Amino acid sequence: MIQNITKPTLVLDVKKAKKNIRRMAKKANAEGIRFRPHFKTHQSREIGEWFKEVGVSGITVSSLAMAWHFQKGGWKDITIAIPCNPLQAPELDRLAGLCQLNILIEAQPVVEKLARTLTQQVGIWIEIDVGDFRTGVSWENRKILSQLYEAIQNVQHFSFMGLLTHAGQTYHASTPEEILDIHEKSVSRMNNVKRQLEAIRSSEVEISIGDTPSLSLVTDLGSIDEIRPGSFVFYDLTQVWLGAAREEDIAIGVACPVIAKYPERNEIVVHGGAVHLSKETLPLSDGIQMFGKVTTLSTDSWGPSMEDVYVSNLSQEHGVIKAPREFIESTNYGDILVILPVHSCLTANLFSTFQSLDGEVFPSFHL
Amino acid sequence: MIQNITKPTLVLDVKKAKKNIRRMAKKANAEGIRFRPHFKTHQSREIGEWFKEVGVSGITVSSLAMAWHFQKGGWKDITIAIPCNPLQAPELDRLAGLCQLNILIEAQPVVEKLARTLTQQVGIWIEIDVGDFRTGVSWENRKILSQLYEAIQNVQHFSFMGLLTHAGQTYHASTPEEILDIHEKSVSRMNNVKRQLEAIRSSEVEISIGDTPSLSLVTDLGSIDEIRPGSFVFYDLTQVWLGAAREEDIAIGVACPVIAKYPERNEIVVHGGAVHLSKETLPLSDGIQMFGKVTTLSTDSWGPSMEDVYVSNLSQEHGVIKAPREFIESTNYGDILVILPVHSCLTANLFSTFQSLDGEVFPSFHL
Repeated sequence: MIQNITKPTLVLDVKKAKKNIRRMAKKANAEGIRFRPHFKTHQSREIGEWFKEVGVSGITVSSLAMAWHFQKGGWKDITIAIPCNPLQAPELDRLAGLCQLNILIEAQPVVEKLARTLTQQVGIWIEIDVGDFRTGVSWENRKILSQLYEAIQNVQHFSFMGLLTHAGQTYHASTPEEILDIHEKSVSRMNNVKRQLEAIRSSEVEISIGDTPSLSLVTDLGSIDEIRPGSFVFYDLTQVWLGAAREEDIAIGVACPVIAKYPERNEIVVHGGAVHLSKETLPLSDGIQMFGKVTTLSTDSWGPSMEDVYVSNLSQEHGVIKAPREFIESTNYGDILVILPVHSCLTANLFSTFQSLDGEVFPSFHL
Repeated sequence: MIQNITKPTLVLDVKKAKKNIRRMAKKANAEGIRFRPHFKTHQSREIGEWFKEVGVSGITVSSLAMAWHFQKGGWKDITIAIPCNPLQAPELDRLAGLCQLNILIEAQPVVEKLARTLTQQVGIWIEIDVGDFRTGVSWENRKILSQLYEAIQNVQHFSFMGLLTHAGQTYHASTPEEILDIHEKSVSRMNNVKRQLEAIRSSEVEISIGDTPSLSLVTDLGSIDEIRPGSFVFYDLTQVWLGAAREEDIAIGVACPVIAKYPERNEIVVHGGAVHLSKETLPLSDGIQMFGKVTTLSTDSWGPSMEDVYVSNLSQEHGVIKAPREFIESTNYGDILVILPVHSCLTANLFSTFQSLDGEVFPSFHL
């Protein structure tokens, strides 16, 4: 039971997570779009099962190690959404013998390396950069795109899947409207490349897009074939800050015991540090960086975050919380505070288990 | 072998780590001061064994869970250097039945809770705040200190050990001289409290101090009884930046495969992200924040970090590296780059194993 927490614990509100899953699935299903959720956020086989209830059969992961984890958990259609690491070609080939494995390609030398190594059929997505400037071939680089497309067609064990992008630039938007503008522009750029490649071989080219902010906000998914959001399963303060979620959608928190109180300097210290929350920050309205907002456990979940109460500093296992003096004076040593995470993926990654509000424990993958 | 690395790997230069251990032990042993290293940095039983070779018999950890980990590994004298969490009193009592367990106390309500719970003898340190403003009773708060000292004497299962501090304000110093000034002031403040308490009961009160920056730089440890540094075992870019270590003392790096190249924007992308390095940053000379410096594997270790090559951005598994165009053009897909960590404790915490340069694997504790 949640009442028995005695140490920093990653707490999961199962109802909220399932609701987040159903909402996203409904959006995809309504438009007949394939929903291939990114499992890097939860990294848990048990939580992964909940996606089967809404018809999901293919998933996205961010490493070959994570792909093995879920293949061993029974998933048979997995996309590794990070540029293919040629050093892992033999291991990729082994995994491709056990499931439908899809990988991302953006460079000729990697095509050549794989062509020499593969003995199994592998699905190939060309990663497109539509303005995030992280990875992928620029959507404007028509010459490279045509060459790469042709080279892929010539590899016996490649099955070309289509064009894939992560429009991560939505994370730098100031308003929900700006996120939707970026999304529209991204889809239009993807369609541009799609038309270019379709003209080469007159065979249809699919489009897969990924980021949680735009996929949470958009109402008409339009001309795309697959969505791969991840963070939406738990959401976090970053998504709330972007306007892509409401605070009540956040499905995980870190429960931390109060271990010290300093009303004279408006601070409480909890057992809960950088190894529990990660050092991801968000700015408060006055520009000060914070590491999480704070709430308390209620009978069936946790309440809304408190005004003027936030994590102001983290060391390895200590969390310093700024709070009004009255709140500190009403708090006791050993009280549990719940910290809403700035970035749920990084916070969840730090724990090897989730604990539900009913006390059920869900293990997750760890490096 | 290090040559067989195919994925993000926490690489350990055993020789450097052992040299760092010997250097610190020599300093303590020369002055007859107890060396109680903080094991939160490596969290590994195997690496812990190396400390026995220099005479260490007592250790420091940052959580009760970590204390169990090392008690099960054979350690019999353990200090948990974080304010005592009263919710864990029954579990503390169990562990205290199996080893010499020492804890930190700074508040009356926690004394009362433990007095009601304990059935085993527990060593008690009063944590003193000498200017870090994280945890501990302020060294100036004479009244509270006397009351707490008296209250501790009245608990049957408490064995009073002395005064303990972590002068973490050294991490905000601009020069090594400033670190040494802070250290001198901290020790003088600790001695102030020591004299106050010794006057109450005319029995000797010990002093334990902790931070790596000052303990790396100080040549005369003077009037202290115990040192508890942690990060010195691996050091990191933060310690180098503070002037407390040389880059060649850094004993861990994260080996990452190159997965994408963008010479046109002076960037390389490696498989190695926030889940491998942590999001801890340091400013470059122009104020830009970076997440690590970059080098390459040499035949027996790694070389010095390269000028103008640094990790400029991290997502969950992608690391973006800024580099001169010539370097990018001479780098191939699948080459291994070694990233020197900003904060070795947080980086090591993210992996469940270290890999030595000889390919030996050392498991570590994980939440």
